[in-house]
Amino acid sequence: MSSAWLLPEHLADVLPAQARRIEELRRQLLDLARSYGCELVVPPLLEHLDSLLSGHGQAQDLRTFKLVDQLSGRSLGVRADMTPQVARIDAHLLNRKGVTRLCYCGSVVHTRPSSPLASREPLQFGVEVYGHAGLEADLEVIELALDALETAGLGLPLLDLGDARPLQALLAGVPQSQQEAIRVAMSVRDPVALQAASAALPSEQAQALRQLLELDGGPEVLALARRTLPDSPQLRAALADLEWLIDHLQRTHPSLRISLDLAALVGNDYYTGVCFSAFVDGQPQALARGGRYDEVGAAFGRRRPAAGFSLDLKALVQAVPAGELRAAIRAPWGEEAALRQTVRRLRQEGETVVCVLPGHEDEGEEYACDRELVLQDGQWSVRSL
Amino acid sequence: MSSAWLLPEHLADVLPAQARRIEELRRQLLDLARSYGCELVVPPLLEHLDSLLSGHGQAQDLRTFKLVDQLSGRSLGVRADMTPQVARIDAHLLNRKGVTRLCYCGSVVHTRPSSPLASREPLQFGVEVYGHAGLEADLEVIELALDALETAGLGLPLLDLGDARPLQALLAGVPQSQQEAIRVAMSVRDPVALQAASAALPSEQAQALRQLLELDGGPEVLALARRTLPDSPQLRAALADLEWLIDHLQRTHPSLRISLDLAALVGNDYYTGVCFSAFVDGQPQALARGGRYDEVGAAFGRRRPAAGFSLDLKALVQAVPAGELRAAIRAPWGEEAALRQTVRRLRQEGETVVCVLPGHEDEGEEYACDRELVLQDGQWSVRSL
Repeated sequence: MSSAWLLPEHLADVLPAQARRIEELRRQLLDLARSYGCELVVPPLLEHLDSLLSGHGQAQDLRTFKLVDQLSGRSLGVRADMTPQVARIDAHLLNRKGVTRLCYCGSVVHTRPSSPLASREPLQFGVEVYGHAGLEADLEVIELALDALETAGLGLPLLDLGDARPLQALLAGVPQSQQEAIRVAMSVRDPVALQAASAALPSEQAQALRQLLELDGGPEVLALARRTLPDSPQLRAALADLEWLIDHLQRTHPSLRISLDLAALVGNDYYTGVCFSAFVDGQPQALARGGRYDEVGAAFGRRRPAAGFSLDLKALVQAVPAGELRAAIRAPWGEEAALRQTVRRLRQEGETVVCVLPGHEDEGEEYACDRELVLQDGQWSVRSL
Repeated sequence: MSSAWLLPEHLADVLPAQARRIEELRRQLLDLARSYGCELVVPPLLEHLDSLLSGHGQAQDLRTFKLVDQLSGRSLGVRADMTPQVARIDAHLLNRKGVTRLCYCGSVVHTRPSSPLASREPLQFGVEVYGHAGLEADLEVIELALDALETAGLGLPLLDLGDARPLQALLAGVPQSQQEAIRVAMSVRDPVALQAASAALPSEQAQALRQLLELDGGPEVLALARRTLPDSPQLRAALADLEWLIDHLQRTHPSLRISLDLAALVGNDYYTGVCFSAFVDGQPQALARGGRYDEVGAAFGRRRPAAGFSLDLKALVQAVPAGELRAAIRAPWGEEAALRQTVRRLRQEGETVVCVLPGHEDEGEEYACDRELVLQDGQWSVRSL
């Protein structure tokens, strides 16, 4: 007997109880996005490699599975992120002038897990707002993310705000090859690695990078950044935007905890403005991440404003306290018209009715049943078990 | 500017209107399956190639995309069919003694389209009943398939019944290599190819194969088969089973049109008993296919009875008459508490409320709106557009 049933590492089946919770959450989040006016799109699992990777760095290339299209001989990739696909849809298929709000939910696949316990097949849910450069779009995206976590039963998260522009300003003029090492050091918050990576820079620039790394904390970080970082139009724009968002979020969500981290790189290299991560207590990884990425459509010939967020439904469901799942009604198997009609009616009313197939009456129940259908006084009726 | 937005042939984005219909249908079918007591499972998109292909013929191998797992160096496949995955889950993960009903819904990917207009990424929905060898399981699966098409708004289909056993009986003793050519000729209903493929067989056997090819029509085919085909225990079992099912289906669905096709091979090579295809008017391809495949778990060390069906939601939605999609409410953007509360309440009630972002008031609507939220006498209220 072979071990044909063994799965590759970091890939797993989702079994019934968990699958049902994921499905419920999936529907709630898609309904939430729809209630904001987001239209659902479903891009394909495979695309030409160059469109999946366009505008992306090496990290995206390394985590994308490659295969060959027998029909064309070209290289295809299994999508590792749906954001560029949705940008392509906005840019080419819909090609609307005005604001376009889109949402999506589907599997993405990674060659390597993004953390030691991560799945290589996250179920990505996300929302994108195209066509509006103003902060109202950023605010709507953040509020939708907060609503998503609330819908999932998690309450308000800790919202960690950052911005891609301060680092961009500090790295102006630094060769791309050196930037990569600095960004890596920043993303793992390693001051020693940062010092090594920025050794070739003028000491003033290297010092500013070190200061940037320390700029995390409460809203007071904004004032600190104004004082300690070299002035630049990008820095000023970033700080003003963050101030506006914090002010508005504090009014709409008075009990929201907000932290700032100006060196934060939220995992993707395409952010161009404010970015955010949402954390809930007891979960070391952010449950939702997003921000502004105005360049995301550029690879498809349409550079227009874009803001959005995404989350992994498989990770989210693990953070959600497991509620009771509705139990079923056990019914005998039979072809009597009255029995069949009763079973049909109960099912149409949303009940689960498990007809016990002949010969299986004494088996443990396959589906948790708390009621049964019995014939009493000539009538089929439901009674508790 | 590159053509990064071009998709590979036979792969397409699903755009908003169609995506919303597929999502609605997906929910209806999963709810229907749940109402029968089917538990949802979600197998991974990628698996070791040998488990995806175990128990399958060359056809499955040819339509499976292959890639290499960087973590293990082993060959992986992108699933081309979820049935073997669900059998693996039944055999190893759940490993229950009694009846187990499972359902699933997910993308599968084919290296080549299965027909000239087919997508290479069908969205497969399916149901499996394990652990019951009796015809009640076959009946339940067929009835669930009929309910699925009715739920989709298609009414009762033409049900084409077949059975894998008559052909198996006629091919007993024929080398596997010759069987393949005969099965191909049968599946395309080509008498000339069949004659060529069976030329090496004794003339009586070749003649029986030709007769089998002609056994399609109404229920009278059963009597004809009894008269013309060489008697065998498998043939007798198949005909008795088909008779039982037709009898029961005619009682539960009096207006169902049933045809018989004893040479039918419903596209997969794993059927071991009764199999079926459901056709609706105007659609040349079957919309749902299924049957009994008691061997499907054998590759995973657990040979137990199994019956099921599956369908492609993307194909199904194209056969369904497009209903009206609910339109949205347009609202101004603003931070006034009363406006925000009204928007929030409407969204919680299931409405779609599109807040027009500042400066975009004159754009064509992104989402079809038939109402708008306006301030009248100091109150936010909805009025028709």
